[in-house]
Amino acid sequence: MRPRSIALATALALACAGLQAAPAASGDTPDAASLRETAKALFGPIPKKVDSVRGQAITAEQIELGKSLWFEPRLSRSHVISCNTCHNVATGGADNVPTSIGHGWQKGPRNSPTVFNAVLNAAQFWDGRASDLKEQAKGPVQASVEMNNTPERVEATLRSIPAYVEAFKRAFPGEREPVSFENMARALEAFETTLLTPDSRFDQFLAGRNSLDAAELRGLSLFIEKGCVACHSGPNFGGQAYYPFGVVERPGADVLPADDKGRFAVTNTASDEYVFRAAPLRNVELTAPYFHSGKVWDLGQAVAIMGSSQLGHELDAAEVESITRFLKTLTGRQPQVTVPVLPPSTAATPRPE
Amino acid sequence: MRPRSIALATALALACAGLQAAPAASGDTPDAASLRETAKALFGPIPKKVDSVRGQAITAEQIELGKSLWFEPRLSRSHVISCNTCHNVATGGADNVPTSIGHGWQKGPRNSPTVFNAVLNAAQFWDGRASDLKEQAKGPVQASVEMNNTPERVEATLRSIPAYVEAFKRAFPGEREPVSFENMARALEAFETTLLTPDSRFDQFLAGRNSLDAAELRGLSLFIEKGCVACHSGPNFGGQAYYPFGVVERPGADVLPADDKGRFAVTNTASDEYVFRAAPLRNVELTAPYFHSGKVWDLGQAVAIMGSSQLGHELDAAEVESITRFLKTLTGRQPQVTVPVLPPSTAATPRPE
Repeated sequence: MRPRSIALATALALACAGLQAAPAASGDTPDAASLRETAKALFGPIPKKVDSVRGQAITAEQIELGKSLWFEPRLSRSHVISCNTCHNVATGGADNVPTSIGHGWQKGPRNSPTVFNAVLNAAQFWDGRASDLKEQAKGPVQASVEMNNTPERVEATLRSIPAYVEAFKRAFPGEREPVSFENMARALEAFETTLLTPDSRFDQFLAGRNSLDAAELRGLSLFIEKGCVACHSGPNFGGQAYYPFGVVERPGADVLPADDKGRFAVTNTASDEYVFRAAPLRNVELTAPYFHSGKVWDLGQAVAIMGSSQLGHELDAAEVESITRFLKTLTGRQPQVTVPVLPPSTAATPRPE
Repeated sequence: MRPRSIALATALALACAGLQAAPAASGDTPDAASLRETAKALFGPIPKKVDSVRGQAITAEQIELGKSLWFEPRLSRSHVISCNTCHNVATGGADNVPTSIGHGWQKGPRNSPTVFNAVLNAAQFWDGRASDLKEQAKGPVQASVEMNNTPERVEATLRSIPAYVEAFKRAFPGEREPVSFENMARALEAFETTLLTPDSRFDQFLAGRNSLDAAELRGLSLFIEKGCVACHSGPNFGGQAYYPFGVVERPGADVLPADDKGRFAVTNTASDEYVFRAAPLRNVELTAPYFHSGKVWDLGQAVAIMGSSQLGHELDAAEVESITRFLKTLTGRQPQVTVPVLPPSTAATPRPE
């Protein structure tokens, strides 16, 4: 057995402690009321609104600007790719391909994580290399395999378009130079905080409603009992800490390619080899294919792989089915986003390349 | 001078007849009232709604389905490209690149025409090879340089997703097999009929308001007087008939590449060499770059080229400026489109390739 992180051990202990309240005899419907109390302690609902980031209030003007930038293909060198290309608000905030296609039809190294509820994650990217959405937003714009742009070119683009200059002034009043790459990232983050999916059937259950059927309740109970919750806890069912993919048994290279060592690339620490941020599981039924490699299309198969690789437990078919059914109750109300009307380029706007 | 089509000659005669009512002395503000009457006869406002196509009523269910399909990347083989990729409702219904980028980052042969108000065109594509939007919609889905898909694969995709099967049943009730490539095209057409841009400042002028300033009125007068209206008439300011690019003087290969002979490819008739459908000019300030080649970024430059190539008239700088200012009054109220929430794939859904 490979070494576990301290966080994992702690989480497992917590999960096991929580479990006392709701043991699930195989095939039985767990007691909904006690399961609800356990679930409240381990998870929590998706909030309807996030009002601030890093202690700073988010303004309507920042959200409005951020929405335009979110759909803005001119943030990319080609003028073809926008944030929404790979984090599509029509499809669970992700792109439903194994790894994203970027500039020049290059394939990115990892599956595109959903933007929905991402503000609730402790850090961003599969390896957590960005501490928040503001830092995250600067990555894909510059990545050569994604939007392939530069901060200078982005700023030149935005400054060449009068409506953007005005929108940045409104969003960042009193600043000497409101139009900046940094403020682009802040505005994108502001918009992203609105991409929440509250009111899932699971959240309705937490709130006291009988919104889960017996199979789903059994799945929830198994999710806790088997130890999934050790990594996938909190309101986002994950996104809070880092764990080796293959805590117990490393999956094959078809699912865990040898050349992507995960968080090791960030920390250069041997114990971080093949360590990834636990994927948030909200809306997981909408975000196939799964894992950082995007190699697994079937949610049940993903659950089974997690059982063997992370928990050292071969889940039987009925267990996989119950957990999968439960996971589908995590699909919340999807954000309603009206496409912005973007202002036209001017003679000074850099041309697509 | 190259031969003109009969349609062009007729239109020019009509334009000149119309002109009698409103001669524009250079530099003078034309008489707004008489200019309005002339403009009403030559153009006409964009309607607020289109209720039917080919005599068949459009239903709300067809529009709703069509909107989902419009944003549906799974209509493409890659699962990355949707109709909205190249006809972006955020950017004037076009993509603002010289020629669109499609499957495998291939560049298409021609500039992507706007979808806005396209239902008002007499035929679709730069060469008019589709008689309506339904026929048009089948093209890019199958084109190897665009979405690179097949009707069979599209149907397999849509039939694999229960929510689409239900939506097709609602949109095409009573049909034996509602989920079909043909009905995909009908639904897309239904949605596209909602992409209208009424209430431009020009349309407000037609309705009797003083919404145009003196320079814009002068531009309108010049647009008629100089003969632009010969090809660019009707509510859409074009899109009704075919004309040689280079009626008087063929532009250089930088603007009119020799290898794209336009409508000749459709009719195989010598007189159709380098013949194109007159571009509709509504929202033209939002749809740079211009011409089928997408080679000209500046609207004023496009106006000047039209003057010399189509009218044999070197417009002076003031004339170009006035006409350009007038053209910007054709920008209407942009459609407000809420992004649909698309249903997830199933195990039976063909995977992206």
